[in-house]
Amino acid sequence: MSTNDLRVGVVGAGMMGADHIKRINATIAGATVSAVVEPDEQRRAAALATAPGAEGYGRLEDALDADALDAVLIATPGKFHTPVLLPALAAGLPILCEKPLTQDPESSWEVLEAEQATGRRLIQVGFMRRFDPEYAALRELIAAGSAGDLLMLHCAHRNASVPDSYIQPMLINDSVVHEFDVVPWLAGGSIVNVEVRAGKRNSLTPDRLREPILVLMELDNGVIVDVEMNVSIQFGYQVATEAVFEKGVARIGQPGGLQLWQDGAFRIGEHADFTTRFATAYDRQVQAWVDAARQGGIDGPSAWDGYKVAVACQAGVKALESSGPIAVELPPTPDFYA
Amino acid sequence: MSTNDLRVGVVGAGMMGADHIKRINATIAGATVSAVVEPDEQRRAAALATAPGAEGYGRLEDALDADALDAVLIATPGKFHTPVLLPALAAGLPILCEKPLTQDPESSWEVLEAEQATGRRLIQVGFMRRFDPEYAALRELIAAGSAGDLLMLHCAHRNASVPDSYIQPMLINDSVVHEFDVVPWLAGGSIVNVEVRAGKRNSLTPDRLREPILVLMELDNGVIVDVEMNVSIQFGYQVATEAVFEKGVARIGQPGGLQLWQDGAFRIGEHADFTTRFATAYDRQVQAWVDAARQGGIDGPSAWDGYKVAVACQAGVKALESSGPIAVELPPTPDFYA
Amino acid sequence: MSTNDLRVGVVGAGMMGADHIKRINATIAGATVSAVVEPDEQRRAAALATAPGAEGYGRLEDALDADALDAVLIATPGKFHTPVLLPALAAGLPILCEKPLTQDPESSWEVLEAEQATGRRLIQVGFMRRFDPEYAALRELIAAGSAGDLLMLHCAHRNASVPDSYIQPMLINDSVVHEFDVVPWLAGGSIVNVEVRAGKRNSLTPDRLREPILVLMELDNGVIVDVEMNVSIQFGYQVATEAVFEKGVARIGQPGGLQLWQDGAFRIGEHADFTTRFATAYDRQVQAWVDAARQGGIDGPSAWDGYKVAVACQAGVKALESSGPIAVELPPTPDFYA
Amino acid sequence: MSTNDLRVGVVGAGMMGADHIKRINATIAGATVSAVVEPDEQRRAAALATAPGAEGYGRLEDALDADALDAVLIATPGKFHTPVLLPALAAGLPILCEKPLTQDPESSWEVLEAEQATGRRLIQVGFMRRFDPEYAALRELIAAGSAGDLLMLHCAHRNASVPDSYIQPMLINDSVVHEFDVVPWLAGGSIVNVEVRAGKRNSLTPDRLREPILVLMELDNGVIVDVEMNVSIQFGYQVATEAVFEKGVARIGQPGGLQLWQDGAFRIGEHADFTTRFATAYDRQVQAWVDAARQGGIDGPSAWDGYKVAVACQAGVKALESSGPIAVELPPTPDFYA
Repeated sequence: MSTNDLRVGVVGAGMMGADHIKRINATIAGATVSAVVEPDEQRRAAALATAPGAEGYGRLEDALDADALDAVLIATPGKFHTPVLLPALAAGLPILCEKPLTQDPESSWEVLEAEQATGRRLIQVGFMRRFDPEYAALRELIAAGSAGDLLMLHCAHRNASVPDSYIQPMLINDSVVHEFDVVPWLAGGSIVNVEVRAGKRNSLTPDRLREPILVLMELDNGVIVDVEMNVSIQFGYQVATEAVFEKGVARIGQPGGLQLWQDGAFRIGEHADFTTRFATAYDRQVQAWVDAARQGGIDGPSAWDGYKVAVACQAGVKALESSGPIAVELPPTPDFYA
Repeated sequence: MSTNDLRVGVVGAGMMGADHIKRINATIAGATVSAVVEPDEQRRAAALATAPGAEGYGRLEDALDADALDAVLIATPGKFHTPVLLPALAAGLPILCEKPLTQDPESSWEVLEAEQATGRRLIQVGFMRRFDPEYAALRELIAAGSAGDLLMLHCAHRNASVPDSYIQPMLINDSVVHEFDVVPWLAGGSIVNVEVRAGKRNSLTPDRLREPILVLMELDNGVIVDVEMNVSIQFGYQVATEAVFEKGVARIGQPGGLQLWQDGAFRIGEHADFTTRFATAYDRQVQAWVDAARQGGIDGPSAWDGYKVAVACQAGVKALESSGPIAVELPPTPDFYA
Repeated sequence: MSTNDLRVGVVGAGMMGADHIKRINATIAGATVSAVVEPDEQRRAAALATAPGAEGYGRLEDALDADALDAVLIATPGKFHTPVLLPALAAGLPILCEKPLTQDPESSWEVLEAEQATGRRLIQVGFMRRFDPEYAALRELIAAGSAGDLLMLHCAHRNASVPDSYIQPMLINDSVVHEFDVVPWLAGGSIVNVEVRAGKRNSLTPDRLREPILVLMELDNGVIVDVEMNVSIQFGYQVATEAVFEKGVARIGQPGGLQLWQDGAFRIGEHADFTTRFATAYDRQVQAWVDAARQGGIDGPSAWDGYKVAVACQAGVKALESSGPIAVELPPTPDFYA
Repeated sequence: MSTNDLRVGVVGAGMMGADHIKRINATIAGATVSAVVEPDEQRRAAALATAPGAEGYGRLEDALDADALDAVLIATPGKFHTPVLLPALAAGLPILCEKPLTQDPESSWEVLEAEQATGRRLIQVGFMRRFDPEYAALRELIAAGSAGDLLMLHCAHRNASVPDSYIQPMLINDSVVHEFDVVPWLAGGSIVNVEVRAGKRNSLTPDRLREPILVLMELDNGVIVDVEMNVSIQFGYQVATEAVFEKGVARIGQPGGLQLWQDGAFRIGEHADFTTRFATAYDRQVQAWVDAARQGGIDGPSAWDGYKVAVACQAGVKALESSGPIAVELPPTPDFYA
């Protein structure tokens, strides 16, 4: 344990938590996992085996009482976020909370109030796309204005397949949720309405799902956005965006790396899932958060960003079951987040 | 003049007509321009200078009286199509009619009736995209089913700029008109409704225009289609389509040819306008028509295809001025075109 | 038969000749196949069946006596070129001679003298790469000088496989022969020496062949050229060139057309053989020759170009069996070809 | 300072050293810069300002006496490597030595003997290309054999320009030196001879230089390699390799990232220098070394690899001034490195 390393307590030792424990100890500078908080004993033990020097706890409160950590990384399922966020805020610790902030606008608002009560922005939400080099490059291009103003965004969000636990509303809450954060971040406006169109169903999608869907958004700066949300496309994992400017077009998320000519075709391997597509984004996100947390702050999407996404998701889920645009209504931005 | 060459009469000696005269004499096998029909004397003379052995006429009827042609290529503005189509049909000659067939469903229906009266399909409409090698390859892929059923089409139709004569309804009647023909040809369904969304306006577009627009279509087989229609994008001319299948994605209209690394970037030249993008398509279209016309028939989009597009355009123009989808209502297909 | 169509006599009705007959009648403007010269009766009959209005002959002389043609297209095996070239030259007819001009410098020189005796350049040699749009674009870029002077060329010439009749010297005489013509045409110099290196042998190549080989050339303007000559690479047919300039790099012959994401990869189909890779080049070559021949001339590689290639091939074959560079020694250019 | 962090002493605080100090403290897990060894006081002070908690020393010996480090990273100019390597070896510390190991085979051999005397492999040489994801992917493809055996490698090594200190032999010793290490690592053989060809000179290269050059190598497994070495190509920085297999071709080092259509062209930005092209490779190299050093060992190119490269460079420099291949003669591999 370093005297100046950030002591990170990871809450939730499922797939995502285990991945973060490995990342912090193996690839992040200036941080060490000091505590693993996981009620399930078996999972906790397995995680501790990969985190030399870390202590295990069943509840965050116990880890806090033991002064076992300087910062909290929350990797539990979304429905368990609030009960972890509140004591972490109460303890005044920097927090990296995997998306979503919480599962609905009401509980997210409650978290906003708790954060404001601390007088400091302590919560960073894990919308890692903002740390992807290509998303960052596209945002710079938009900001530079060298291609003129941004007019439209065409997004494609494609998964080869989804697990049995994936149900219809997750098309919005687990998948489009990323576009709800990254699109305003790119385009510099906020979402005013959302429409969902479901056309021909993919016969390879599980019976419980009706997809792919086409999600249409309008931003308050006039930018139009369409998102193809697709979770059974078989060929691989692809997250791409085409930005239409006044004088040009930009595209990110295209294939790269080793090129191979074989069996009658030129080919470039495509990603199989998000772990490779966004590996760099996850590393950069956690490094940025660790660097900021060592100064007691955050460096990424705020709790307010998390709240706005929760409101958009609520409208999106409604749009899933209706036709035509559903309005996205936000309260005024609290001064604290202005 | 060859004894077995097809004697083509070109009606209209404007830019398009002049281009067809040059094509027929310089690059098409088995055909010669035998007559140029153009009321404007100066234009007619200029065209004749490029067509050795051709005679000039002010009206098609005069050329017909002189038995000066075996087939008719109509390259006049759309509003003059009907008065040329009717006598050509009456004479029983094979016709290649530049798009649109006519400017509204009513006059197109009138032409359909005249064609049916001849007992033969004599009209081929100049929707040249069907002859573009990449559109043809995409249609084969869809028909093959090797990537599963087609689910969605994302289309981009981008022009660097448009002439002063280009007005708002032409976004539909002159530009999206191509998608109205080629999308059903690709996807194998027919259009049931059209919606137009206009978001942020391009500040570089002429004052009289409100664009780019996003055109949304639904086909009766469930396929969803979005078309970005853009006529002031400055960088060049691009017509691209992305097809979403159950097991994969295909894309056509991407950059090709000489690749150059210079001044800090890798680059591939983009088309400046349709003349290079669709040069091969025009050549193949006219060669296919000539080969068929020599047998007295046609080989391409029929008058009925032209009528369906006219109906879609009428709905599209209405959609330009309203919000939400506009229904596209077609009469039953006449047996003659079944 | 058109009064102004060029009457082409095709000599040799093998695969190549049959292909040219089809091309001239189906895709070339201003020409018709009027005579098929082929000693083998069966082949001749088969070819005539595809050339309505053409007459068959066993010897070119008979076709000439019958005044059956205005121009000659020679598609016989190389060893039979001289006995056809000489009477065709004597008759003063424009000639398109498939490469090579003849099989050795001596016989090529004899043909040069016969052509000079006619007082006109009548022979065009079928090096079709000069008519490929990408080779033409690269040549324009080199001539423009916008990327600085040309310094090096890296060429790849890859065949999936070769027929049983293909023997070791054909690596030079049938394959590298194309680079021997097109490289000086691109780089604007002439070849001063040729070296061949054979490294690891492809275990999939026929026992009689030792390949791939790396062919190195130096031009009199200092440009260095390397050619990977590969005839068993299985994956497809690829002819590519990378040009190194003072300020940049250009590449031609890269994959293009429909792009497909399926089965974990992004892919673009590669050519299977030269018929698709150079289809446009063959059409353009024959159209250019027909247009020139109608004026009594040629428009493409001359007999002198054919001679220079014969000299380079002689050195190349010698280099196949030796180590180090073999000099390519040319006589002074005859004034007739200056 | 962490109780289990690796305490790294960085020797040499020039551009490269400063870069490594920043990397270790900002992006590498499990290591901290504990000592900066630099005779120049000003440079040392500047470096220390960026390395909180590190002590400064004028000589490595002083840092060793103070027990200030667990491992040594050598970033001095090559000619100063030996006097640092020897005491570091004597102290039994793990070493990451920037390439070259030393400047000639003789001094490299001396270092080999010193390392063998310690009984452990302590030296890792900084040939970072082995840690580039695309080089690693190509090596995997070669090892997998799925495309058949490797037959040839075509390499391009292009710099926009070079500093005034760059002289002719550095084309080999500073630039091709990377290919001398990575080519055998990829192809699994060792270099038997090297030839250099200088053709047309780039008029934009400094007067003292004669380049670009074409470097030809033959490996003992028959693989043929050509390397275009180019240091004044202006457009950017590009390091690419094309691997020719029995059944296919693979290419690495091609453009990637954001794609932009503007001003008549499709473009992808190219690298300006090695800092971006190999950023990931440097991070991975140092992380791998740190992880291994914490166990007392190394994980990368060995001192023996460094020696073999020194021998190849000696032949390469000789080839720069002669024509034809120069033999690369290696002593038998010492058992210690077998």
